Amino acid sequence: MKTATILGSGSWGTALACVLRKRGLDVTIWGRDQMITDEISNRHTNGRYLPSVDLDPAILATSDLESVAKSELILFVVPSKVTRAVAEQLRKCNVPADSCLLACSKGIEGGTGNRMSEILREIFPDNPVAVLSGPNHAEEVARELASAAVIGAEDEKVGLELQQVFTLPWFRTYTSDDVAGIEIGGAVKNVFAIAAGTAEGLGLGDNAKAALVTRGLAEMVRLGRAMGGQAETFQGLSGVGDLMVTCYSSHSRNQRVGVMLGKGKKLEAIIDSMNMIAEGVVNTTTIYECARRLGVETPLIDQAYAVIHEGKSPARALGELLSRDPKPEAEPS
Amino acid sequence: MKTATILGSGSWGTALACVLRKRGLDVTIWGRDQMITDEISNRHTNGRYLPSVDLDPAILATSDLESVAKSELILFVVPSKVTRAVAEQLRKCNVPADSCLLACSKGIEGGTGNRMSEILREIFPDNPVAVLSGPNHAEEVARELASAAVIGAEDEKVGLELQQVFTLPWFRTYTSDDVAGIEIGGAVKNVFAIAAGTAEGLGLGDNAKAALVTRGLAEMVRLGRAMGGQAETFQGLSGVGDLMVTCYSSHSRNQRVGVMLGKGKKLEAIIDSMNMIAEGVVNTTTIYECARRLGVETPLIDQAYAVIHEGKSPARALGELLSRDPKPEAEPS
Repeated sequence: MKTATILGSGSWGTALACVLRKRGLDVTIWGRDQMITDEISNRHTNGRYLPSVDLDPAILATSDLESVAKSELILFVVPSKVTRAVAEQLRKCNVPADSCLLACSKGIEGGTGNRMSEILREIFPDNPVAVLSGPNHAEEVARELASAAVIGAEDEKVGLELQQVFTLPWFRTYTSDDVAGIEIGGAVKNVFAIAAGTAEGLGLGDNAKAALVTRGLAEMVRLGRAMGGQAETFQGLSGVGDLMVTCYSSHSRNQRVGVMLGKGKKLEAIIDSMNMIAEGVVNTTTIYECARRLGVETPLIDQAYAVIHEGKSPARALGELLSRDPKPEAEPS
Repeated sequence: MKTATILGSGSWGTALACVLRKRGLDVTIWGRDQMITDEISNRHTNGRYLPSVDLDPAILATSDLESVAKSELILFVVPSKVTRAVAEQLRKCNVPADSCLLACSKGIEGGTGNRMSEILREIFPDNPVAVLSGPNHAEEVARELASAAVIGAEDEKVGLELQQVFTLPWFRTYTSDDVAGIEIGGAVKNVFAIAAGTAEGLGLGDNAKAALVTRGLAEMVRLGRAMGGQAETFQGLSGVGDLMVTCYSSHSRNQRVGVMLGKGKKLEAIIDSMNMIAEGVVNTTTIYECARRLGVETPLIDQAYAVIHEGKSPARALGELLSRDPKPEAEPS
């Protein structure tokens, strides 16, 4: 692969552009916001989403979708809730049938419960589709700090080809055929990151946080298997790895939302105060809907939903989680 | 159960004394150091190991082992490398055959590869033996911050009885019959905590740390299963839960050892500078020996061993881990 288009000029899209450019590909970022695409093309920075990173001057950016629809590799790094709209728009630009489409955003579509790769497969039935996920803060990847990710593809050949493209001394990729498991882990962990942050905001300590994240992992496995993922995937980089980095890092937007919720701030005020979208806020609804539809017991997701969307007090939600009857650890919940 | 003896006057022993006393038991701490036992009995503090916690005045302490050998519940909370010696000493004090022995220290015995409960079972073949483990910083438990733990007992009745004794509104326990899995998780995680700290000391970021801890979890499962544990136990509080709290908390002594190693300090100087024993330093050897004896592939444990005990440079060890061939994620290593 020699040419790549990154759909989305946010922090992760820009960081992935850096990886691919370092690997020698011709890289163009597409974004709706012409201020940002102009800044990337002309000043080689993305001050809003990746401050203090100097981009390779060969990384171009545009807000003209048609001009970048012929690349061999097309990354979807727009927010999950606009993935379908962007994909529909791209379809009209006659993408070659052998262009590889790579879903890099983490989320589940509201209403349908579709994963990002399912949306792409529906709209581009003839193209190879794969996913990339893992414990990756964009800032660190852009700064070339050692990072690892998983590439999921049903077709092993596609997975191996993408692994080649995404391998650098400081960026390692593993392959997997469990596309569903990879995507579900990435979407679900944001809910637990908000919950972990909320516990922190409430003044709980490291013990409670670890217990909460561990019980969250159990919910991820339970729900993820019901949604078609393989149990072992959730023990890997895109499952527990991403869960840890999101719950334990100050970079994490979702965790910060949780901390503010725990301190008693209202969701609207929190969202207004943030520069970027915290995907977990949207995803809590879609994940909660999936769990209810599939009849999977998810006490932590339920309480997170109640706090975020029904105005339940975080202290009461936590109290209810803590007062559940003592049980054997390995039972369903 | 009405009477409990805590063997070990360190931070975890003292914190567990607080839990049992709060539950209404008559609690006595035994320790070798009479300065500390006197302080606990007379001033109701343990300034060296649990500073800034006021103990219940009803918690007594002694350095006379014989006087506390008749309790219904006896907790072993001495460092793992002296567990056998203390157990041998206690045996001479005629412990009642129905006294329940609870192993609360995390470690594997050097040379034999025995788990703590195996040592107790060998020395007290007639007594009920169980284990308690989980993501618990002693300081937080003593301060009554919400925490959770797992009690492992082969005899379900013993497990349920202990669960009753260790249940408080802010301390929740789950039961399990996988004694081996619980103990192995607790011993192995210290090695990864040192490795995670080393990565931090080397200046790596959150992405690398998450990848390292995730690969560590995979090694824990592989080695743990070979040592007789059940895979799902490592996904629980005593496995991944304890791994997270140890790798991500500033309370963790093992993590601090790693950070100093990563910054280029020598092990002897690090040990000299610390007030308490970092169990992981001892355990890296015993865990490494177990892995070699069982022929389990453990690249991370091997590199940690080489850094800690063979003077290998942390940067070189990390470089070798990062340069391993790209692989499918689910393969053995």
